[in-house]
Amino acid sequence: DFLNALTEVTSAFGASTDDLERCRLNGMVDCGARHHHIYQRAMLLVEQVKVSKGSPLVTCLLEGPSGSGKTALAATVGIDSDFPYVKIVSAESMIGLSEASKSAQIVKVFEDAYKSQLSIIILDDIERLLEFVAIGPRFSNLISQTLLVLLKRLPPKGKNMLVIGTTSEVTFLESVGLRDAFSVTYHVPTLNKEDAGKVLEQLNVFSGDDVDSAAETLNDMPIKKLYMVIEMAAQGAQGGGAEAIYSGQEKININHFYDCLGDVVRP
Amino acid sequence: DFLNALTEVTSAFGASTDDLERCRLNGMVDCGARHHHIYQRAMLLVEQVKVSKGSPLVTCLLEGPSGSGKTALAATVGIDSDFPYVKIVSAESMIGLSEASKSAQIVKVFEDAYKSQLSIIILDDIERLLEFVAIGPRFSNLISQTLLVLLKRLPPKGKNMLVIGTTSEVTFLESVGLRDAFSVTYHVPTLNKEDAGKVLEQLNVFSGDDVDSAAETLNDMPIKKLYMVIEMAAQGAQGGGAEAIYSGQEKININHFYDCLGDVVRP
Amino acid sequence: DFLNALTEVTSAFGASTDDLERCRLNGMVDCGARHHHIYQRAMLLVEQVKVSKGSPLVTCLLEGPSGSGKTALAATVGIDSDFPYVKIVSAESMIGLSEASKSAQIVKVFEDAYKSQLSIIILDDIERLLEFVAIGPRFSNLISQTLLVLLKRLPPKGKNMLVIGTTSEVTFLESVGLRDAFSVTYHVPTLNKEDAGKVLEQLNVFSGDDVDSAAETLNDMPIKKLYMVIEMAAQGAQGGGAEAIYSGQEKININHFYDCLGDVVRP
Amino acid sequence: DFLNALTEVTSAFGASTDDLERCRLNGMVDCGARHHHIYQRAMLLVEQVKVSKGSPLVTCLLEGPSGSGKTALAATVGIDSDFPYVKIVSAESMIGLSEASKSAQIVKVFEDAYKSQLSIIILDDIERLLEFVAIGPRFSNLISQTLLVLLKRLPPKGKNMLVIGTTSEVTFLESVGLRDAFSVTYHVPTLNKEDAGKVLEQLNVFSGDDVDSAAETLNDMPIKKLYMVIEMAAQGAQGGGAEAIYSGQEKININHFYDCLGDVVRP
Amino acid sequence: DFLNALTEVTSAFGASTDDLERCRLNGMVDCGARHHHIYQRAMLLVEQVKVSKGSPLVTCLLEGPSGSGKTALAATVGIDSDFPYVKIVSAESMIGLSEASKSAQIVKVFEDAYKSQLSIIILDDIERLLEFVAIGPRFSNLISQTLLVLLKRLPPKGKNMLVIGTTSEVTFLESVGLRDAFSVTYHVPTLNKEDAGKVLEQLNVFSGDDVDSAAETLNDMPIKKLYMVIEMAAQGAQGGGAEAIYSGQEKININHFYDCLGDVVRP
Amino acid sequence: DFLNALTEVTSAFGASTDDLERCRLNGMVDCGARHHHIYQRAMLLVEQVKVSKGSPLVTCLLEGPSGSGKTALAATVGIDSDFPYVKIVSAESMIGLSEASKSAQIVKVFEDAYKSQLSIIILDDIERLLEFVAIGPRFSNLISQTLLVLLKRLPPKGKNMLVIGTTSEVTFLESVGLRDAFSVTYHVPTLNKEDAGKVLEQLNVFSGDDVDSAAETLNDMPIKKLYMVIEMAAQGAQGGGAEAIYSGQEKININHFYDCLGDVVRP
Ligand SMILES: Nc1ncnc2c1ncn2[C@@H]1O[C@H](COP(=O)(O)OP(=O)(O)OP(=O)(O)O)[C@@H](O)[C@H]1O
Ligand SMILES: Nc1ncnc2c1ncn2[C@@H]1O[C@H](COP(=O)(O)OP(=O)(O)OP(=O)(O)O)[C@@H](O)[C@H]1O
Ligand SMILES: Nc1ncnc2c1ncn2[C@@H]1O[C@H](COP(=O)(O)OP(=O)(O)OP(=O)(O)O)[C@@H](O)[C@H]1O
Ligand SMILES: Nc1ncnc2c1ncn2[C@@H]1O[C@H](COP(=O)(O)OP(=O)(O)OP(=O)(O)O)[C@@H](O)[C@H]1O
Ligand SMILES: Nc1ncnc2c1ncn2[C@@H]1O[C@H](COP(=O)(O)OP(=O)(O)OP(=O)(O)O)[C@@H](O)[C@H]1O
Ligand SMILES: Nc1ncnc2c1ncn2[C@@H]1O[C@H](COP(=O)(O)OP(=O)(O)OP(=O)(O)O)[C@@H](O)[C@H]1O
Ligand SMILES: [Mg+2]
Ligand SMILES: [Mg+2]
Ligand SMILES: [Mg+2]
Ligand SMILES: [Mg+2]
Ligand SMILES: [Mg+2]
Ligand SMILES: [Mg+2]
Repeated sequence: DFLNALTEVTSAFGASTDDLERCRLNGMVDCGARHHHIYQRAMLLVEQVKVSKGSPLVTCLLEGPSGSGKTALAATVGIDSDFPYVKIVSAESMIGLSEASKSAQIVKVFEDAYKSQLSIIILDDIERLLEFVAIGPRFSNLISQTLLVLLKRLPPKGKNMLVIGTTSEVTFLESVGLRDAFSVTYHVPTLNKEDAGKVLEQLNVFSGDDVDSAAETLNDMPIKKLYMVIEMAAQGAQGGGAEAIYSGQEKININHFYDCLGDVVRP
Repeated sequence: DFLNALTEVTSAFGASTDDLERCRLNGMVDCGARHHHIYQRAMLLVEQVKVSKGSPLVTCLLEGPSGSGKTALAATVGIDSDFPYVKIVSAESMIGLSEASKSAQIVKVFEDAYKSQLSIIILDDIERLLEFVAIGPRFSNLISQTLLVLLKRLPPKGKNMLVIGTTSEVTFLESVGLRDAFSVTYHVPTLNKEDAGKVLEQLNVFSGDDVDSAAETLNDMPIKKLYMVIEMAAQGAQGGGAEAIYSGQEKININHFYDCLGDVVRP
Repeated sequence: DFLNALTEVTSAFGASTDDLERCRLNGMVDCGARHHHIYQRAMLLVEQVKVSKGSPLVTCLLEGPSGSGKTALAATVGIDSDFPYVKIVSAESMIGLSEASKSAQIVKVFEDAYKSQLSIIILDDIERLLEFVAIGPRFSNLISQTLLVLLKRLPPKGKNMLVIGTTSEVTFLESVGLRDAFSVTYHVPTLNKEDAGKVLEQLNVFSGDDVDSAAETLNDMPIKKLYMVIEMAAQGAQGGGAEAIYSGQEKININHFYDCLGDVVRP
Repeated sequence: DFLNALTEVTSAFGASTDDLERCRLNGMVDCGARHHHIYQRAMLLVEQVKVSKGSPLVTCLLEGPSGSGKTALAATVGIDSDFPYVKIVSAESMIGLSEASKSAQIVKVFEDAYKSQLSIIILDDIERLLEFVAIGPRFSNLISQTLLVLLKRLPPKGKNMLVIGTTSEVTFLESVGLRDAFSVTYHVPTLNKEDAGKVLEQLNVFSGDDVDSAAETLNDMPIKKLYMVIEMAAQGAQGGGAEAIYSGQEKININHFYDCLGDVVRP
Repeated sequence: DFLNALTEVTSAFGASTDDLERCRLNGMVDCGARHHHIYQRAMLLVEQVKVSKGSPLVTCLLEGPSGSGKTALAATVGIDSDFPYVKIVSAESMIGLSEASKSAQIVKVFEDAYKSQLSIIILDDIERLLEFVAIGPRFSNLISQTLLVLLKRLPPKGKNMLVIGTTSEVTFLESVGLRDAFSVTYHVPTLNKEDAGKVLEQLNVFSGDDVDSAAETLNDMPIKKLYMVIEMAAQGAQGGGAEAIYSGQEKININHFYDCLGDVVRP
Repeated sequence: DFLNALTEVTSAFGASTDDLERCRLNGMVDCGARHHHIYQRAMLLVEQVKVSKGSPLVTCLLEGPSGSGKTALAATVGIDSDFPYVKIVSAESMIGLSEASKSAQIVKVFEDAYKSQLSIIILDDIERLLEFVAIGPRFSNLISQTLLVLLKRLPPKGKNMLVIGTTSEVTFLESVGLRDAFSVTYHVPTLNKEDAGKVLEQLNVFSGDDVDSAAETLNDMPIKKLYMVIEMAAQGAQGGGAEAIYSGQEKININHFYDCLGDVVRP
């Protein structure tokens, strides 16, 4: 079942929670060497935080195009860390709150984490936390200042913390000084042809002949959007075909797949 | 009676409501292949939502010039979906509310929909929901952020949702990141000569000889404006002629029709 | 008496009210073919609204330079319509109110009108309702959004409404999308030489020889300003001459008239 | 005594009040033909208002450089009008009030005036009433809108009103539409050589030989600033000389006068 | 003792107060002809205010680079005036107050002064009273309007007032119209070589040979900064040397003086 | 142990506090002549403040790139001063407070310090206290004005104060006038090759041969970032290696060190 495909990367779970699991609804497939490298470096930071005395606070930013897999990756690191406190801070649970309330809620998460000897905080979609919009541009400077201070403030003696941020607006974060507030930054890329081919094989929804042609058209596609197109295509041109595809009885019609791709991709 | 002309497209009603019906006051006539294609693709998304496990939230934007039929089309998809929860969110019922109240009301509609296994939410005239005005430009960033989060937030497990947005300001939506927040976007066009001719024949208010000449002048006309011009012209130059036209006793004078068209169309 | 000169156009009064009458303090004289044409087209819309089933809301904008007679014209259409509900919405009665109160008051007028089977609402000096000022520019987006929605929202079933707007800032209305929110727009012009001559003859304050020379200098003059200059000139160079002029005993001295015109017209 | 020099222009007082008198602390001397002409035209408007039926509201703007005598002139017209209600609206009595309070207070003055059959309202230093500052520029749009409406709103039937505005920022008033809200505008100029000479002779503080040389240097000087320089010069280089000058015992030393002029005039 | 050096200029004290004395912590030394000239002209204005009938309000602005001695000069004029009411208005006593409170407090000082027959108000560091910052630029328009009105409003009959403003941001004051709101403006300069030499001789902290070389390097130095450098240099390179210098036992090492100057002056 | 390496510079402690010690978590190593020079000049200012009569307030700004050691240096001066009152004002303890509260809290620290005969106040990260963000730019003018006044206001008689500010946004401080509000400014630089080599030798985590090659790559590195890279590298490529490095048993692998450096440094 391609919806639950899991790679060995995430096979050994640590402190997992429902919230984190919902961040990778389509599981974790092998997306190629570049994605894997980032996972490994992030896990090294987890190790460093465990033993550090001189840098009780380590901060790491995952940036990349919309849908490239940043949130799923951060969640996976959180799950695999085995840390007693892993928390995701997301705009989803703060809709409609005032800037001050949002800021207070973020501070609260940090204060809670300070009580744990080892903690991970995921600041998901930082531009959304900051209520960023490109026109103007506008954003919440209150929340921006809060993050700037929190990303520099040391936890109490004896407590170590890893902060992972995600964003698809790294230029904006740069311009408000938030990019430089992170110690390290990793770029999470879209899939290239090879990556896409690898993913399609794992999903097993195309006939062997079509995998390569399909992968070719998926160059530069974010992993999240790939799942959306596959699912659209799986319905078939008349609808109702999804069952047969997912059960493996039938394969996706490559031409209908091209049609769906055309609807999703901007000309 | 041209005011109630209905095509077969909408003949099989599902979960219809008065609100949705008011969105297509002049019924649904055949507006040509391009309109029909969009209807079909939107109905495929309805099918996808019904069976999807990996994408519990599907989002679709209908954009196009003012009066091109977006709202009527969205309402028709809602009616034809047979979904238990179909709701239109419009600025009309929120005049004068504060940004915060509007935002809360929109959130409320989503929360209600989450209780239904299958739901459709129509965000009508998104630029109006956002209180957009081109000077500045100005708009409600609070509501904009609310929509950005809602269009990404997954419904609870087991609940699937289709969101249809409409707008005649797609460039603005683009600039605030709302266009890319939708999975797919369809452009609802104005009528071309052929479409207009087809519509005029269905309305049957011109003498046979005049249909073609009239259609010629209606190139690039939105369907909504076409209805307005026809009705103006139906009064006759001295007024009082509408009854005779609608009952079929008389036909519209083509020259008076040209006059009315001149008043409505910008030089 | 030129202050009460009335043309046949307005001779047959319908549902008249004091408020509407005050909008044409100097009565309605014949201002030439272009003014008359607009009056006729507006009256045709009145007819359309009476019988329409497919367009329960018709909207019409009168735009033109300051003082060209827009308000008087709209009031006249309202009076001549015989509609049971005719209401003028003006900034005069809302001085100092908050944007929210103004908006609420405007909505109230529409809600009241919805109770009437046939209604006319005159939105007078829309730029003033919107608190428009060219520097910035600044304006009330709250009221602007309210109008944008009200100009599109359909009255309840069975109720028909005509909205007439007036403005001398059509470019501004264009830029906030309010111009396109009206179905039709008519340009109310200043007087040309011929129009001015016609008006002067009706007023009968110049000796026959002077009418033409005077009219010549009044080219491109708005009707409202024409009345102001005439009255200034009627005082005479030493003051106190008005009585004699209005009673017809004397005529205005053409040179003094030129002097007054120079004070009023910008070099 | 030059401090109380009064010309015949203001000799016949009408409805005078202390407030208006304080506006011309140095009395009214003959400032030349251009000043006099404005006074005469303004008095003609007073006459017109007395008898008008078709224009119950007449509005007139006095604009000119700082210190050119606008306020004193407006006050003089008010005093000489003999009208039962003459009121000056000035920022001096409204320091620190909120925009809303200022606006309300201005409206109050108009409402009071509406009760009088004949009234004059002087809006002094309109840019100050509007809290105008060139940087930005910034100003109170609330008060600006209030004035725009008040300058157009007709008094109740049977009541006639003259509004006189003064400003040294006519370009600003133009840009907010307030200049065109006045029916007529007069430019109050600085003194030229001839005017200055005439004034100096009336003041009689220079020896006959020096009057011409002094007047020469006073070209383009506003009348108000002229009084300030004369008074500075009258102290003498060591101070204490004023008494002797004003009593006519001594004359001002022309070289010390040049020194003072240098301090006051911008290089 | 150079810290208490007083010139004859300030030897005859009038109505002195502690507040005013603190404004010239380092006393008043002879800073050269240009400083002296300004003092004399300001004292002439004091004389004028004492006897004036036609100009009950005289206003004077002291502008010049930071530290050039404006505040000390204004305080000295206040002390030397012998006026019963001399008050300094400074941002120091209003930190953190709202704009409205600051404005009210300033108005209060004027109202209090109006009760005195003769009064001096020093508006110190006007840009600071206005909360000016160059970015934007931003400033309090409320306070700016308050000052604009207060600088024009006449005291009650029989009361005369001198207002002295100081600023190091004369261009900003110009741009908000505050510079022209003062009758006269004097530019308080930095020291030139000659002035600096004169001051150094009075301070007597260099050996005779070094005075000239030191003065040479102090060209264009504000008097306030000169005191700071001298004090830094007086510590000696190893610290602890100040006592010996001030008591006259030792002289400042010229090379260490150059070092300190390098730290203070911008390259 | 490199985490606690202390140079002789800070060996003689004065009034030390926990807060100040936390500002130099990695101790104080010898960072080369330029850092040392600044320390010495700052300590001379401490001496000056102790004995000054004419300048009771001395102010000094430490500016330099992020992580160059400004805060640790300021804290060290505070600790070494032996002053009874040493206080650090930092945004960390004021997260989420309103501008007014922050401003009040800063004023409070100054008021408290005024009670001490000798005091040092460290304004840490002034751009953060001002909530500065480069877009716009935006910042708190309230706090900016508060600092501008506090940096000029003299302590009460007999009390002397040293204020040390730190910032990595000196251009911004310049533009709001805060840079010139300090008497002296010192630039705290990044390390050059020689400095870095010196530091690496003190840390003793590389084999002798590698120190020079490593130092070469650390040119222009801020001391704070150097510690972060060293700690990352100390984990080893597989993690878990830190213990062995810090205990001196093993040395850092130079190639892994280059890898880590690559992650931290921007291409
Ligand atoms: N190796 C992988 N890495 C990341 N995501 C993966 C991987 N394999 C499968 N996925 C799936 O791809 C999707 C990635 O979406 P995700 O929300 O993480 O992207 P994102 O970059 O955070 O998007 P956005 O920019 O919209 O926030 C998830 O549904 C996840 O289950
Ligand atoms: N095939 C059709 N598709 C859409 N609308 C149709 C069709 N046939 C007839 N209509 C009529 O055309 C009108 C379309 O107006 P609608 O309000 O949907 O346009 P719109 O694009 O939403 O306009 P706006 O940009 O002003 O929101 C409706 O009155 C509808 O009844
Ligand atoms: N045929 C006419 N049409 C319009 N106004 C007329 C006509 N004949 C006479 N008038 C008089 O001319 C004046 C027109 O002024 P009105 O206030 O309508 O102008 P306006 O265009 O609304 O001005 P503004 O731009 O200031 O709002 C009224 O006093 C009206 O009585
Ligand atoms: N003929 C005159 N016209 C005007 N003012 C005169 C005349 N003769 C003497 N004055 C005196 O000149 C001064 C004019 O100052 P006034 O305040 O009227 O100028 P203003 O143009 O209103 O200045 P501001 O631009 O500062 O408001 C008054 O003191 C007045 O007494
Ligand atoms: N002749 C003098 N004139 C002015 N100040 C003098 C003179 N002699 C000595 N001083 C001393 O020089 C210093 C001048 O500082 P002051 O605060 O007046 O300058 P300022 O121009 O107001 O500075 P800022 O621009 O910072 O407000 C005072 O300490 C004063 O005692
Ligand atoms: N000689 C030194 N000077 C300064 N810091 C040193 C020195 N030796 C070691 N350090 C260590 O280097 C680090 C310097 O970091 P610090 O926070 O002072 O930098 P900063 O310039 O204030 O950074 P930021 O710009 O982020 O505020 C501290 O951990 C400190 O212990
Ligand atoms: Mg994400
Ligand atoms: Mg629509
Ligand atoms: Mg009008
Ligand atoms: Mg004036
Ligand atoms: Mg000063
Ligand atoms: Mg720091």
